[in-house]
Amino acid sequence: MSDSKKFNAHHAPVGAFASFTLGHPGASGGFGLELGRPAKQHVYVGVESATEAGRFEALPFFEEARNHQQDFVIEGQGDKIVRAPLVPVEWDQIERRFGACVDEWSWGDACFTLYSPTWSIPEPGREGSGALATALIPAVFAEFTVDNRKGARARRMFFGFQPDNERLHIRESWEMTSERIAGLCCGGDYGVATDAPGATTAIHFDVETILGEPDRERFHFGNGTTGILDAVVPAGEILTIPLVLGFHRAGVVTSGFQCSYLYSTFYKDLEEVLRAGLQHFPRYREAAIAQDAAWRANELSDCQQFHLFHAIRSYYGSTQMLEHQGKPLWVVNEGEYRMMNTLDLTVDQLFLEMRQNPWTTRSVLDFAAEHYSYHDQVAFPENAEEQWPGGVSFCHDMGVGNCFSKPGYSSYEIPGLKGCFSYMTYEQLLNWICCASVYVQASGDIEWRQGRLGLFRECLASLLQRDHPDPAKRDGVMSLDSSRTRGGSEITTYDSLDASLGQARRNTYLAVKSWASCIALEKIFRDALETPLADACRDQARRVAATLISGVTSDGTIPAILEPGCESRILPIVEGLAYPLHCGCAEALDPEGEFGPLLEALRNHVLQVIDDGRCLFPDGAWRLSSTSTNSWLSKIYLSQHVCRHILGIRGPEVAAVADDAHRDWLLQPDNAFYAWGDQFYSGVMKGSKYYPRGVTSVLWLDE
Amino acid sequence: MSDSKKFNAHHAPVGAFASFTLGHPGASGGFGLELGRPAKQHVYVGVESATEAGRFEALPFFEEARNHQQDFVIEGQGDKIVRAPLVPVEWDQIERRFGACVDEWSWGDACFTLYSPTWSIPEPGREGSGALATALIPAVFAEFTVDNRKGARARRMFFGFQPDNERLHIRESWEMTSERIAGLCCGGDYGVATDAPGATTAIHFDVETILGEPDRERFHFGNGTTGILDAVVPAGEILTIPLVLGFHRAGVVTSGFQCSYLYSTFYKDLEEVLRAGLQHFPRYREAAIAQDAAWRANELSDCQQFHLFHAIRSYYGSTQMLEHQGKPLWVVNEGEYRMMNTLDLTVDQLFLEMRQNPWTTRSVLDFAAEHYSYHDQVAFPENAEEQWPGGVSFCHDMGVGNCFSKPGYSSYEIPGLKGCFSYMTYEQLLNWICCASVYVQASGDIEWRQGRLGLFRECLASLLQRDHPDPAKRDGVMSLDSSRTRGGSEITTYDSLDASLGQARRNTYLAVKSWASCIALEKIFRDALETPLADACRDQARRVAATLISGVTSDGTIPAILEPGCESRILPIVEGLAYPLHCGCAEALDPEGEFGPLLEALRNHVLQVIDDGRCLFPDGAWRLSSTSTNSWLSKIYLSQHVCRHILGIRGPEVAAVADDAHRDWLLQPDNAFYAWGDQFYSGVMKGSKYYPRGVTSVLWLDE
Repeated sequence: MSDSKKFNAHHAPVGAFASFTLGHPGASGGFGLELGRPAKQHVYVGVESATEAGRFEALPFFEEARNHQQDFVIEGQGDKIVRAPLVPVEWDQIERRFGACVDEWSWGDACFTLYSPTWSIPEPGREGSGALATALIPAVFAEFTVDNRKGARARRMFFGFQPDNERLHIRESWEMTSERIAGLCCGGDYGVATDAPGATTAIHFDVETILGEPDRERFHFGNGTTGILDAVVPAGEILTIPLVLGFHRAGVVTSGFQCSYLYSTFYKDLEEVLRAGLQHFPRYREAAIAQDAAWRANELSDCQQFHLFHAIRSYYGSTQMLEHQGKPLWVVNEGEYRMMNTLDLTVDQLFLEMRQNPWTTRSVLDFAAEHYSYHDQVAFPENAEEQWPGGVSFCHDMGVGNCFSKPGYSSYEIPGLKGCFSYMTYEQLLNWICCASVYVQASGDIEWRQGRLGLFRECLASLLQRDHPDPAKRDGVMSLDSSRTRGGSEITTYDSLDASLGQARRNTYLAVKSWASCIALEKIFRDALETPLADACRDQARRVAATLISGVTSDGTIPAILEPGCESRILPIVEGLAYPLHCGCAEALDPEGEFGPLLEALRNHVLQVIDDGRCLFPDGAWRLSSTSTNSWLSKIYLSQHVCRHILGIRGPEVAAVADDAHRDWLLQPDNAFYAWGDQFYSGVMKGSKYYPRGVTSVLWLDE
Repeated sequence: MSDSKKFNAHHAPVGAFASFTLGHPGASGGFGLELGRPAKQHVYVGVESATEAGRFEALPFFEEARNHQQDFVIEGQGDKIVRAPLVPVEWDQIERRFGACVDEWSWGDACFTLYSPTWSIPEPGREGSGALATALIPAVFAEFTVDNRKGARARRMFFGFQPDNERLHIRESWEMTSERIAGLCCGGDYGVATDAPGATTAIHFDVETILGEPDRERFHFGNGTTGILDAVVPAGEILTIPLVLGFHRAGVVTSGFQCSYLYSTFYKDLEEVLRAGLQHFPRYREAAIAQDAAWRANELSDCQQFHLFHAIRSYYGSTQMLEHQGKPLWVVNEGEYRMMNTLDLTVDQLFLEMRQNPWTTRSVLDFAAEHYSYHDQVAFPENAEEQWPGGVSFCHDMGVGNCFSKPGYSSYEIPGLKGCFSYMTYEQLLNWICCASVYVQASGDIEWRQGRLGLFRECLASLLQRDHPDPAKRDGVMSLDSSRTRGGSEITTYDSLDASLGQARRNTYLAVKSWASCIALEKIFRDALETPLADACRDQARRVAATLISGVTSDGTIPAILEPGCESRILPIVEGLAYPLHCGCAEALDPEGEFGPLLEALRNHVLQVIDDGRCLFPDGAWRLSSTSTNSWLSKIYLSQHVCRHILGIRGPEVAAVADDAHRDWLLQPDNAFYAWGDQFYSGVMKGSKYYPRGVTSVLWLDE
């Protein structure tokens, strides 16, 4: 098994698109604000050696830093610089305890703990703003303890960093000094502060020079590139320093639609974040500990918990609670790609949000409906010229890297393609339906359902039309591509896989998802007393089921694409089964019910492709498609859940063996730099790094 | 001679700390906002070949760009991508016309011109805000012309760029499309726009793919990394596209003292900058042409004009017109170091500001007096323990990289040193006196002089005290170091030179500057009817003169340091002579007057060290110190001016030969990337790159 200590993890506030990422060896982490990768800063968490005065040891999150001192050529006899020896703590001396909200490294007589609460966000305007300000504080929290009770002399302990950012300068926050707060910031963007008595700050070109200087007042060197907060733990004492690690961006932060961070209404600048974090430090620390425990209070294996905690962290690092014209807008940025509210991620991340903040998903659905929906025509592939009415669908995303794209258009989709970057019209239609239905069920927000009833109707019409323009010829499966593709072909969220999952037309993964959408819409309409529409949904669901069952081949499996000659077999064919339970449609999953045969067919399919190894890697990891080496963890988690929880498939292949193999993927040294990531090619993370999507694993908590 | 075309130059708004730098081969320039170096973006200014359809040629300001397309592995038969051939125009086909406000490249039937006006800035509140909004617009302007009158077919022309910035995403500004403006931006920070009829935008991973696509509507690909604005010039026509290249940062942009850009009161976001620039394009273009002509209307040689224009551009790229609590604050950032309002640069840049905007210097002097001054004790080097009262002085700078340092402290000065990064207490005292006196003379601002009279008195007392605490023992030359050095030694602005210019104590460069300070203070006090103080100044000036004259050695030169055994001889000993003319003290420079012998001694010194080659490099470039290979262009310009204009020294060594050699320094390929720079080690730019200080060359206009 891979070394389970050496991996980057997000330590992220909620909704600040920020992360203090840490854990991978070297200058791998640090303060990342709106980044699509770890910040690659040198981070110093260290203490003077217990055995050798003047020698320092720090967690191994730094490298030999570039010595900027050398840039300044000084002729003649230069001033002497004494650099203290600083060595990384050996990995085998370090113990790491990793949770969803608490991450702790202990070594020797020292311990460093990062706290990052996963608050639920109260809906703005619904209750007092205090809870909102608490939940949205753009900060994470840390404690650094040195137990010098056995020590014979005082020792210096320090937390520092060297940002690799040529635009933002590191600075001591002199504004806070009079408040007895020691603060070290990088421009106005991020920084760390403590109110530990006696703590001070220092800046120079490198930390070794700072540590080598006995005169504590010498190095307030604004031109320096490295800073530390430090304190002295007296002989015979134990000292714990609280640290607030804050982020801030004021004013308008997006283009196109101009939004600001909602937190900026509570915290006007970085200093206010740091002050508030220190003032309420115990509350945040205790919340993190309690929430961490809550995330642990389940029957999951340690390995499953590792996946879950890691994924939750990566999710929050990508989240952004914005405000647009006085209304809140939730944005999840797509990891390394930083696309905003990619709808095929929203539908996966939905299950976490239903536990945490259902209203945020509503804000995404509304913004999509109002600004990122469109109407199209559709055509059969053999005759792209002959166009039929299509209907409504939704854009792949709302923009990228804080730039909202033109309304009605995503940043991703390009006409004229058959592969990656083509349109996902059909899939996004299903995604909006699934998200909206799950939201209605989880929130009980009848008012919203009624307000969106017209759009639900449009969605159904659009869904049907993409099956066949002639109602008599419908078989439940998508057969027409959007005119937006301009002669190309629609793709699915699995954009980088081969046709087995990449092609939308006649795709059985989408077929099951469309079945789930029909089931969900049926309930929406039935509850709204729109009986004829509800019945139409049921009919369409039956057509999907019948077509899928008729697609079963002689070995008991269903091809990925319902077209002649398709050899591919896929595991995500079952994905859509995850939704009915969350839409209040448990009856659809009754093995004895109307869709029992469909469930049975899908169960047999999975059992077969696992049993014959077509959809497994040699190490037991799941292979989403039998014809591709590209496999996505978020979707594996989801399919695992469906297999176990809906289809009742048991055994180590759908649990421990696979979980271990997937953990090994995440912990391979090259992969582990990117924290949680999604796309693995035979176990190598090649895309969707630093990614939010893994929270499909919260479904495991339902099992 | 070096190839005079291939060099980066700033094209910078006034006071926006921004520059569209361009001119060096490769991906060397582009939009730089608050950067200490050129932006290293791929910039594309190109047109379809006149002879070969589908082939494109662009100015050589790009390189083979990283193909981000390769990041997206797509299995199966990928969509075909057609990349059009794009080749750089050969350098020998390019003619460049370089001025202070107009920079033009022409080749074949195309011409690209950048306009960057050098407005005077009206003092806020003194006149209507219209002129202020005009002067401070954070934009530069361009025209791109293709003369296709001889062409038989329409040709596509384009301006594009690929930013190398992972945080800011390139975007099409869809908000402006309805206004018939085509805009291409990077986040909200910078961008380009045109209102040329028919102009469009496109984005993809690389420009070759965009150019290779016949369907103009396909590539609005938000995930792309490269964008172009383009238009088609029909056969038989000539087309000129106006371009506005704008920058923007809203809200608080500094830490410590929180300031915003003054322009942000007129332009709330980047789009407003681009719109306003297009709306008033003719005014800006004509102003740039007129101002460019005005900067040329002099007797300077072409080579001198090159130095001057280049320096003016580099200066404006470092300038920042801020607002702090409703009051304007002028900041000049120190090139690659980005230190803010370094006072030893202010005193050099003063002469430009007195022509352009005297009040901005007053804002710097006031902010220094109110927030970045301090009082110290002083001590003789042989007995640092015995301290004497010192007096007032000023910090080296006000901070770095938009972070204001703690009041009373610079970002640069460190106690306990004898070399680089030590305190410059004495020199900064002289610099504040010289700046303030020149400001009073240039502005006629008697009210300000009277308001600062107390500080002028303090300055005089401080200056005298640093000579000797015992008035009877004063000889005009600095002999005591500030207690701020804590046992170290003060240095001068020449911080990276050997002791000849680096040591403050007994330094003859500082001695002449202190003479000039006394002359200047004498006039301040005499005009203020403070006759005893004026007389005291005169007395001190006499002491300096006497000491310097007594220091003349047998070869007619004066040592750099008035201490035994100093072999160094320096050219900047004459620097201080530049000030009396600008302080209204011409009489002090009268060869027949009281200080005639001092002038004669300094003249002989210069003639000797030039004649015997001690202060020349082999190519005729000036060597500031006979014992160092480190020479600074800004200071050379200043000393050249004094030699010619004050001391009446003529001949090619102080003019054409030296000017040519210095131009060759600037144009060496490695140096030329950094636009104008200051510190050269035997002709190699090793420090103070991308630097504002060269505007000492405006003094040449007085000759």
